[in-house]
Amino acid sequence: MRKVAVAGVGMTKFGPTDKSLVELFSEAAWEAINDSNIKPADIQALFIGNCLGDFAEGQANIAGFIACELGLSHGTPATRFEGACATASVAVRDAFMWVASGFYDTVLVGGVEKIMHMGTPLATRTFAMATDSRYEEFCGLTFPAVFGMMAHMYSVKYRIPLPALKERMALVAVKNHQNGINNPLAQFRKEITVDTVLNSLMVCDPLQLFDCCPFSDGAAALILTTEEKAKKMVKKPVYILGTGQGSAGSLSRQKDFTVMKSRVASAQQAYAMAGLGPQDIDVCELHDCFTIAEIVASECLGFFKFGTGSQALETGETKIGGRIPINPSGGLKAKGHPIGATGAAQVYEIVKQLRGECGQRQVEGAKTGMTDTLGGDAGTIVNIILRR
Amino acid sequence: MRKVAVAGVGMTKFGPTDKSLVELFSEAAWEAINDSNIKPADIQALFIGNCLGDFAEGQANIAGFIACELGLSHGTPATRFEGACATASVAVRDAFMWVASGFYDTVLVGGVEKIMHMGTPLATRTFAMATDSRYEEFCGLTFPAVFGMMAHMYSVKYRIPLPALKERMALVAVKNHQNGINNPLAQFRKEITVDTVLNSLMVCDPLQLFDCCPFSDGAAALILTTEEKAKKMVKKPVYILGTGQGSAGSLSRQKDFTVMKSRVASAQQAYAMAGLGPQDIDVCELHDCFTIAEIVASECLGFFKFGTGSQALETGETKIGGRIPINPSGGLKAKGHPIGATGAAQVYEIVKQLRGECGQRQVEGAKTGMTDTLGGDAGTIVNIILRR
Repeated sequence: MRKVAVAGVGMTKFGPTDKSLVELFSEAAWEAINDSNIKPADIQALFIGNCLGDFAEGQANIAGFIACELGLSHGTPATRFEGACATASVAVRDAFMWVASGFYDTVLVGGVEKIMHMGTPLATRTFAMATDSRYEEFCGLTFPAVFGMMAHMYSVKYRIPLPALKERMALVAVKNHQNGINNPLAQFRKEITVDTVLNSLMVCDPLQLFDCCPFSDGAAALILTTEEKAKKMVKKPVYILGTGQGSAGSLSRQKDFTVMKSRVASAQQAYAMAGLGPQDIDVCELHDCFTIAEIVASECLGFFKFGTGSQALETGETKIGGRIPINPSGGLKAKGHPIGATGAAQVYEIVKQLRGECGQRQVEGAKTGMTDTLGGDAGTIVNIILRR
Repeated sequence: MRKVAVAGVGMTKFGPTDKSLVELFSEAAWEAINDSNIKPADIQALFIGNCLGDFAEGQANIAGFIACELGLSHGTPATRFEGACATASVAVRDAFMWVASGFYDTVLVGGVEKIMHMGTPLATRTFAMATDSRYEEFCGLTFPAVFGMMAHMYSVKYRIPLPALKERMALVAVKNHQNGINNPLAQFRKEITVDTVLNSLMVCDPLQLFDCCPFSDGAAALILTTEEKAKKMVKKPVYILGTGQGSAGSLSRQKDFTVMKSRVASAQQAYAMAGLGPQDIDVCELHDCFTIAEIVASECLGFFKFGTGSQALETGETKIGGRIPINPSGGLKAKGHPIGATGAAQVYEIVKQLRGECGQRQVEGAKTGMTDTLGGDAGTIVNIILRR
């Protein structure tokens, strides 16, 4: 397998937009194309992550329309992927293989989502389709409920009283909002406090409004190419060293949702391919769709022992400057979560961090980074490890 | 790149079902697993084509649920693909690469769709999402209209009076229904005549009811593996020699819809990879979603010169026993068209033909076969060439 480089990245500002999905993705794509100094004609294939385009805009089969919008030839394969919130990461991992295998030299990959015009009730309803429609969704199980249950389970399992756990969960939101202030593309750029979280609207016990990431519109795109070509294209290529992907059934088929086996398996695959371990990761963008989700993810990835991830919020180990900075971009919580774009946006941030282009949110000296994206209630999980 | 074999195939009967999408796919998957003499634990990754599961059943993120249903481990990547009616073929081409690259040895790939419970008006509406939502769909353009326009354009361009063209189009339906009689998994198994077609309900001028394929439920699945493993598993492995995939924008961006550039490019890719040409194909399953579509496809694939495909219906060249038998399975017209499954079902038929297991619909001595799957109004096209 050949070494695969990320030669260019692009990302729109996250938040409401009047653009169509095709236009929104194209904005990110052109930035990635220009960032990598290629011409559109150099793109041999297109890999598009999009989760809800059919519900949001009546647009299925979107990949070909994007290829056309970018002026790519009729011979350019354009493929859409969907894996709930892990949608774009699935696309990135797949695009990686087409270059690693030697079949294509240069490809465009990314994701796009537009959901804010739906309004919260309908958006919550459509997102719930990523749970099992036979056993969960029809009961009214939405994702705030899934992660609310997770917080209760975590509290009981590790004997952390819920009020104490909630304060630590709030620190996830406080940290990620603090990081988001320094990300010009973030949806929210304002400081919050633990009190902000604990005094906010109750969404689904114990999750309050500021425990939850927002609905977002946005897109992110990457140019993947060979090591040889990347070195000619750009000064600072970043390499994909390892990828992993796991899967799971409904919650009723998972033994312990606070220790997601699909995520542990996925991370192990990525570490094994990279020849690295959690101790080698300098910066991580992980799936903080809810505050409890960041804590659980940080344990599954091996940064903390199971049951100890919440303490790390108090010691500041996951802050920029800490032992393992998590979500310097602001994460899903502050940067925003356009679900089909999130995985590519995570890679965007890691690439920018490894290039040293992140200004006030820069993790100094970061050489190795990791992404983690969760689809549904662990149905799809992808991890990607990158190094400069 | 390694040679990739199809070691096992499975397919449900096409037509209405009470099963869920996950259950329906599993039925095809177990048949493919048993047909290839592997154990589920041998499956290293899952590639699922599904187009409208979210609309039909409220089920997005379906791939993980299928992996769980089949008892696959949490470390098994499970990916959903969507490219309108070419959905499953996109999945097959992608799965092919993961094995050809050397990354995986044995994978499960296929597609599933369930649409009949929606009823025709809503199904037609949801299918229309595969046209461009910005320029076509909102005008009320449905697929009978797209292919109705195609028939008119074809008639004018090649100066074939519409009544004469309609008689030849009717012969497509007559041939494919004749073939379907001998396919126990086909949705329709009854003989029709040219009069049946020409006296049927007008759907969208000049297309009448029997010019149109039906709405269908169904699933098909394949086990792909290496040449070495396939030879140990089964007596008659069939090999994927070439694949191609093309893309296009809305109809307004396509110069001439009767000569689909995305299809021509895709077929050329497949022929080039296989080192073959149209003259080497012994049997073809192509995308006869409407009778005119079969004629246009047969020209784009190079079996007939542009403008001469309809005459071939009169000479019988595309019948079983003719020069290039097309759609011996009954095609989308008689076998049925569960859109997210169709591409895998086409490969199923070619594999069965190349193994010589097709009974009364067998194309005698077939060594090399080809599939052709069209998504939307040419937005996604995939071709696959197989040989025993």
